[in-house]
This record gives sequence, structure tokens and C-alpha cells, in this order.
Amino acid sequence: MSRLEVFGIEGVPEVRPGDDLAGMIAAAAAADPTTALADGDVVVVTQKVVSKAEGMLVAVDPSDPLSHKPLVEQESVRVLRRRGDLVISETKHGFICANAGIDLSNIDVGYAALLPEDSDRSARRLRDGIRARAGVEVAVVVSDTFGRVWRRGLTDVAIGCAGIRGIVDLRGTEDSRGRVLQVTEVCVVDEIAGAADMVMGKATGIAAAVVRGIDPKWLGDGNVHDEIVRHPTEDLFR
Amino acid sequence: MSRLEVFGIEGVPEVRPGDDLAGMIAAAAAADPTTALADGDVVVVTQKVVSKAEGMLVAVDPSDPLSHKPLVEQESVRVLRRRGDLVISETKHGFICANAGIDLSNIDVGYAALLPEDSDRSARRLRDGIRARAGVEVAVVVSDTFGRVWRRGLTDVAIGCAGIRGIVDLRGTEDSRGRVLQVTEVCVVDEIAGAADMVMGKATGIAAAVVRGIDPKWLGDGNVHDEIVRHPTEDLFR
Repeated sequence: MSRLEVFGIEGVPEVRPGDDLAGMIAAAAAADPTTALADGDVVVVTQKVVSKAEGMLVAVDPSDPLSHKPLVEQESVRVLRRRGDLVISETKHGFICANAGIDLSNIDVGYAALLPEDSDRSARRLRDGIRARAGVEVAVVVSDTFGRVWRRGLTDVAIGCAGIRGIVDLRGTEDSRGRVLQVTEVCVVDEIAGAADMVMGKATGIAAAVVRGIDPKWLGDGNVHDEIVRHPTEDLFR
Repeated sequence: MSRLEVFGIEGVPEVRPGDDLAGMIAAAAAADPTTALADGDVVVVTQKVVSKAEGMLVAVDPSDPLSHKPLVEQESVRVLRRRGDLVISETKHGFICANAGIDLSNIDVGYAALLPEDSDRSARRLRDGIRARAGVEVAVVVSDTFGRVWRRGLTDVAIGCAGIRGIVDLRGTEDSRGRVLQVTEVCVVDEIAGAADMVMGKATGIAAAVVRGIDPKWLGDGNVHDEIVRHPTEDLFR
């Protein structure tokens, strides 16, 4: 029977532009025998440290709580809704989220972090880097915290992935009655990102986590941009 | 450091209207020493078995694949979008989802399962029943599989909960820089439902799972209807 373990990787040092993030995660994981990485693990890394390592930081006026708002406009290709200071927009990456994914928490005062230019590519690089440094074949999910249209509260979702399929398609498999299931395309990378969020917390500064024990059939080529970001032509709410 | 375990409860027999679902879950969990329930566990139960136990089954014409469509209209208070056979509507419970949460998989041929009348109440009853039968204080989440507006693929979310807060409010706590976090209301019960989905699968008939190791601070009074279902007045996309 499948059994998942979800745990945070502690001790990743402060990440700065140009840092070898894969190496830092691999070293921190290896420093504690209970968190050493293994083949088949999914390593979930928060957008914020990926953006920091990739230098996606922009100086903002620390005395102005709205100083990042021009960046929101710059990173957006289409604004869907505005209410007060809140902007819901489609980013140039195709994500629809609040404030173009830009926020200021856990960043040095005076800076804002933009989303990575290509989070799937970020995930591939992290996966390659972890393989090179730790000798293990892991999948990587880059996670970010998004709101939802009709439900309060935020959850973490995947904005990039590598080594794992974004969506596992169970269409055509049989249910326990032998009836063919009609639509069961499960977005497993979002469920993985959410599970990892529960051990990372928002205030503790743990920047990466491991989900261990997923079905090996889910591993393989995958990416968020092509599999998960809904194309405008099939979108009923844009 | 927090470490979660997520595992399915195997061996729950076929659920029929009027069955003591809490007792069946408690007995199945206890039958395998590796899945025995403990204080602080979150037991995630799929909507489908809750609906079956509560008798929310309606006869439909097995020869007509659209025979449940009149039920979709009946269970909806407002239709938001239609495309082909797909209806996105607000159900009488306040959920916005496809086909009013009605589906036909893993149900006897000739029947459709409606959502429970009050999934938070269902969760409270399961929690009370498990306490009475197994002597453990667990939280309960009733989960269902919903689509998302701008992301492809389905994930499991909470449609009811008991003994756990639906949303953990981290507003006002400090991030690792000592800066007060602005908005971090995490919908932990949705992240829990998604994690549980990964060990339940769609075709294997495992109807309940356990998420063990959550932060005890998340336990307490909570419910999905009041905490998570977004009120129309604050909804930008209805």
C-alpha cells in the first residue's frame, strides 16, 4: 500500500543571487541522515528561494508598502479584476494569480521577488543539479502560494516541475465497479506542493521539502506550463 | 521538525445506506497495526462513501449517460457557465463545482450519488463516531474532487471538516526577517484532502486515509461552510 512521508529540509542557508541552490539543498538534506535524498523523492522548492538564486529581485522603496505595484503591472499581460490594492492578472508566464506572484515576505527589506522567468526550466536545472551533486534521481516541483476564486484561504500549487508528470490521467482506467472512469485527470503536482507546504510553514524559513513514496508511474517528463496552465480558449472564466 | 505520514485505510467494506461508516473505518484501521488511529490524526473520508452511508443515492437510467443531468439542475441554485454537457454551478450547499458534485463512478450502476446535505455535520458525526468506537480524538475531513478555473486537472479539496480549523491564519505572525506577514491564511484542510488523495487513488476503492503529524495548533473547532466557502459579496468571479 502506498504511504507517503513529507518532511522539510532544514539548514538551507540564506540564498543569494547566483547561488548553487541545488547544491545547497543537497548538502542540507545530506547533513541530517533522516532527510537524505533518495531516488524517486519529489523535492519541493519554494518559488521565493528559486527567484532569489536566479536573481529575480528588484529594489523597491521600503517606506512605501505599495512600491511593488508598478512591478505587478509590468509582469502582467492582462488584468482580470481589481479591487482596492488587489490585482488579479494573467502574468507573462500564463499564471493567473494575485499581484503577479510578487510579494515581499521573507525577502530583504527594500526588495521584491518576481517569479522565475521559466519555472519549469528552474525545476529541470534543480533536478539536474541534485543528480550531479547527490547522485540521486529526484523529481522537482517549484511551488508558490495562490488564492482560489470561490474558496477562501491560500494553498501552495506547482508553478514548475521536472521528472514528474504534472497531471496523471486516469481516464479510461476502470473504477472498482469495472466501469470506465470518465474524467479523472489528477493534478498530482499541485497536491504534492500543498502537502509540502504543511511542513514548510510560512514563517520558519524552511525553503524545501521532500514528498517520498509517490507512485513511480507518476515519474517521467512533465511540466506545468503545457500540462496545467489552462489555455484561454478552454477557459470559461477569463 | 514536523514530518507528515499519509496512508490509506484498507479493508473498509462496501458502504450501504444506513451503515455505521465511523465504525467501519475504525474497525478497518484497527485491523492493521500499521494503520491504527491515534489522537491528533486527521481522517480523510471521500464524499462518495459519506453520501452512500447517508443514503444520498438517486436512481438513474443506466442506459443514458446523461440521466443524472436533471439532478444537476435540481441540486444547483445558480448556473455560472455551461459548455456542452458541462455545467458549472453553485450548489445549494454553496460549493461552486462541475455538475453539482454529482458523479457516477464507484457507485452501483443505475445510481448517482448527491453531495451530503451538510458535509460539516457529516464530519462531526464521523469524528464523534470514531471517538466512541476507537477511543481516539481525531479530526475528520470529508473530501471531494473539484476542478479549478485556470488550471487543468482535478485536486481533492475539503467539503466538510470537524476538529480542525479550515484555515490557519498566519496574518500578523512574523516572517524570518521579523517583518509582519501580510496575508497568509492557509487552507490547510484543502492541502490535507489533496495529500490524502495521493494514497487513495481513484480506481482502487480506498475510501479513507490518514494524515498524521500535523501541527496540533491547527486542531480545534472549524468548518468548511463558514470558513472556506467564499461569500458572493467578496467573490470577484461569479
